Amino acid sequence: MSKQTEEYPEETLDPKDWKSMRILGHSILDDALDYLETLRDRPIWEHAPTHVKAHFEGPPPEDPEPADDVYQEYLRYIRPHQLGNSHPRFWGWIAGSGTVMGMFADLLASSTDAVSGSFSYLSNNYVELQVIEWCKTLLGYPSTASGLITSGCSASNLIGLAVARNKMAEFDVRSRGMQNAPQQMTIYCSEEAHSSVQKAVELLGFGKDAMRLIPVDDSLRIDLAALKEAITDDRENGCLPLCVIGCAGTTNTAAIDDLNALADICAEEKCWFHVDGAFGAWAAITPDYKYLVAGMERADSLAFDLHKWMYLQYPIGCILIRNAGEHRSAFSLTPTYLAHGKGERGLTGVDVNWLSDYGFELSRGFHALKAWMTIKEHGTARYGRIIQQNIDQAHYLARLVEAAPELELAVPVSLNIVNFRYMRPGLDETGLDNLNKQIEIELQEQGIAVTSTVSIRNRNYLHVGITNHRSLYSDFDTLVREVIRIGNELA
Amino acid sequence: MSKQTEEYPEETLDPKDWKSMRILGHSILDDALDYLETLRDRPIWEHAPTHVKAHFEGPPPEDPEPADDVYQEYLRYIRPHQLGNSHPRFWGWIAGSGTVMGMFADLLASSTDAVSGSFSYLSNNYVELQVIEWCKTLLGYPSTASGLITSGCSASNLIGLAVARNKMAEFDVRSRGMQNAPQQMTIYCSEEAHSSVQKAVELLGFGKDAMRLIPVDDSLRIDLAALKEAITDDRENGCLPLCVIGCAGTTNTAAIDDLNALADICAEEKCWFHVDGAFGAWAAITPDYKYLVAGMERADSLAFDLHKWMYLQYPIGCILIRNAGEHRSAFSLTPTYLAHGKGERGLTGVDVNWLSDYGFELSRGFHALKAWMTIKEHGTARYGRIIQQNIDQAHYLARLVEAAPELELAVPVSLNIVNFRYMRPGLDETGLDNLNKQIEIELQEQGIAVTSTVSIRNRNYLHVGITNHRSLYSDFDTLVREVIRIGNELA
Ligand SMILES: Cc1ncc(COP(=O)(O)O)c(C=O)c1O
Ligand SMILES: Cc1ncc(COP(=O)(O)O)c(C=O)c1O
Repeated sequence: MSKQTEEYPEETLDPKDWKSMRILGHSILDDALDYLETLRDRPIWEHAPTHVKAHFEGPPPEDPEPADDVYQEYLRYIRPHQLGNSHPRFWGWIAGSGTVMGMFADLLASSTDAVSGSFSYLSNNYVELQVIEWCKTLLGYPSTASGLITSGCSASNLIGLAVARNKMAEFDVRSRGMQNAPQQMTIYCSEEAHSSVQKAVELLGFGKDAMRLIPVDDSLRIDLAALKEAITDDRENGCLPLCVIGCAGTTNTAAIDDLNALADICAEEKCWFHVDGAFGAWAAITPDYKYLVAGMERADSLAFDLHKWMYLQYPIGCILIRNAGEHRSAFSLTPTYLAHGKGERGLTGVDVNWLSDYGFELSRGFHALKAWMTIKEHGTARYGRIIQQNIDQAHYLARLVEAAPELELAVPVSLNIVNFRYMRPGLDETGLDNLNKQIEIELQEQGIAVTSTVSIRNRNYLHVGITNHRSLYSDFDTLVREVIRIGNELA
Repeated sequence: MSKQTEEYPEETLDPKDWKSMRILGHSILDDALDYLETLRDRPIWEHAPTHVKAHFEGPPPEDPEPADDVYQEYLRYIRPHQLGNSHPRFWGWIAGSGTVMGMFADLLASSTDAVSGSFSYLSNNYVELQVIEWCKTLLGYPSTASGLITSGCSASNLIGLAVARNKMAEFDVRSRGMQNAPQQMTIYCSEEAHSSVQKAVELLGFGKDAMRLIPVDDSLRIDLAALKEAITDDRENGCLPLCVIGCAGTTNTAAIDDLNALADICAEEKCWFHVDGAFGAWAAITPDYKYLVAGMERADSLAFDLHKWMYLQYPIGCILIRNAGEHRSAFSLTPTYLAHGKGERGLTGVDVNWLSDYGFELSRGFHALKAWMTIKEHGTARYGRIIQQNIDQAHYLARLVEAAPELELAVPVSLNIVNFRYMRPGLDETGLDNLNKQIEIELQEQGIAVTSTVSIRNRNYLHVGITNHRSLYSDFDTLVREVIRIGNELA
């Protein structure tokens, strides 16, 4: 040690007392496992009261607080008032439920402060690339495609549409910018497409006016004739029809567009074919329901996530791009301080492509680890069976609804979402809308179950999106019973 | 339980044997803590050999693998071949080092599969909002500003520039798109700005031709006269000068632009003022070096991260926007299935703004928890001292370099980055470039330290970016000694 260093009292954020920090860690882990093991016995959600909200006001703490006390604050103020999406009766919106191995993997990724996607001869990159390869294989996508693990399907849609834009625009968008586009570019999707598609379209500079929201048929799938007409009209009006977005599972009803027909239209019209398969894409790995997403593998870009139907912890999504070169040329940018790819040695040698060249993020978390470890632990066959179980549960719930005179199904089940409402003779539609919203709220506030409500053909329905590996058939019996009880009580 | 359910054999991803899974969890945690406690005794990095890479080839596993075996694979093939950024002698590029409490927080967030940013009466949202408030206070930003926790400074730059675009363009960009811009818009930053800025500019549809890369002065700070001239020229040529990006710590040398001068120019020229303070922004919380980033608080948008200099685990960044309304109007989009803000009850009641309306992501991990718990544990005063310690260490290293006849400093230290090279009389510049790249590689491959190399005025220098709470002064003694040893050996 040099002489100078003795002058300096050094400080670090490492524990002064490793032993007591270790004891705390083990009790945190035990509590977390207890929590998961006894999920079912607990109310699904507890509305945070005002004093909890107030607890999170106030300036940054200047002074240290003992680690144990910080954890006690977590237990007291944070844990009880979370969304409840791990619970067996959480079916609101479309959410993930998490796995124990996923939690261990997150702990491990965090223990080494792991990054992924840059630098060479690193296991993290190999793991991420293997998870991407697995996704390609599982979803029937060509092995020559490229991909990227993302923070979710919003980011995946953004990346997919960015590649589409840069490839299909008939000029150099990366250099010249959208403001120099010679033609109005247009983008097509059904009225039921997810809001993240519009967000991506806006962010990329297309503007939402460039979106053609095509009407849907009775099954809430894109109307193919209307789509073709819109493309023809736009072309006649001097626009450049750039991209068609197919839905493999819409948020409202899990409607799946006719993806083969869309692929054909795109081939004919020379449009980019993007599929948003956020959760629905995973129907491809079930024993019996693969056919529902047939044609998805023909997409030029396929966006989905693994934090809904692959049950992994937030955040993890993925984008696959059929043409790896097009993917890379939309994003690759190597400043001198990231130069790499020379020689066989060191962190900048040549081993695999740096994934930071395939998206807009540089530093990237090691989200792939939880996918890798959990998929290994369970194997894809079990995953396929449980995803299928969720679909079967949706059909089961639909049957229960149809058997109950108080309840009305909105649309036949197409995948894993059931929309239904409580009916009361004499109440008008507005009354029914309010009543069903009230039922949603009571289910949540009483800690029984979480459903959301969605609007289908302008009416409110309870929305049960089943992407939950913990749900039992009996949980849907409970739901139906409680909806009827609450409906009756509120009336 | 209903009759029907008996027909169905239900499966879940929960452990069949919680007890043995719990034992595994505790041994994972012990190993992780051992790993961190003994970091210093281990080589910083081990080049992954071919058989490790080969281990990650092969199709998705159909069958389950025992959880313990999956973890053994992690220990054998993954852990040894990570970047090493937690190690006390990791100074390559600019990377984080992680904390033990951060790891506990990641475990906790993962245990409940926590999300943040949507839904009401949830502690997670309160925590995220409080962390954003703390950032505002710590960085001297107005309390009326809005903000968002992001996946890193790339995403933060993207969001900041998106708000700038939508606000400053003289038409409705969200609706009409960049292709309908009446004027060429232009964006200004120094030649030393980070590549993520260019990526954002391209993604947003400005095109990189819209970027004016302004030359730098001797201290590698933006040349203010050249900037003013460029703005004037562009305006004369019919362009709309839209945004100036100030660097609060460049990647190469941690140069900090004259932020007050930039704020003045922006006020005069009616340009948006964006600051990229990825790591450098945090100089604001040191006892003695706040003045270095003076003027930063005048930015219209301030991008930074907490996974470099706040030492938190990847990923966590933040964007602050001075005008909360402008922030929201750039991103807010509420489809019917996300409708919220009515009544005092349920997950869609009125409590706080949903943060999903302030960025492009919908599902968002609970990254704020690790910030909240770690900042509480240590307090901001200690954080300030350790960040200052890193700056002092940079000056210390620079003195060691200047004292060594074999070494040459590239530029005076402006913050926490030291660039220097090993010199050998008689070697030409190309020879020196190669030699210093070789020294970087040997340091890495021998497991001694990780530096990167950067190009400054077209010459290669070893780049030591000190954002590491574990580095001791003696570690820099080691670095200098080893660089000289390796340089001598290679020559
Ligand atoms: C069909 C669809 N696409 C995209 C998304 C956005 O995904 P994420 O929340 O992962 O960003 C969702 C989210 O529910 C979705 O249902
Ligand atoms: C100055 C600067 N800006 C932006 C970034 C990008 O940050 P991130 O890697 O968190 O996306 C970096 C990364 O090193 C940086 O140094």
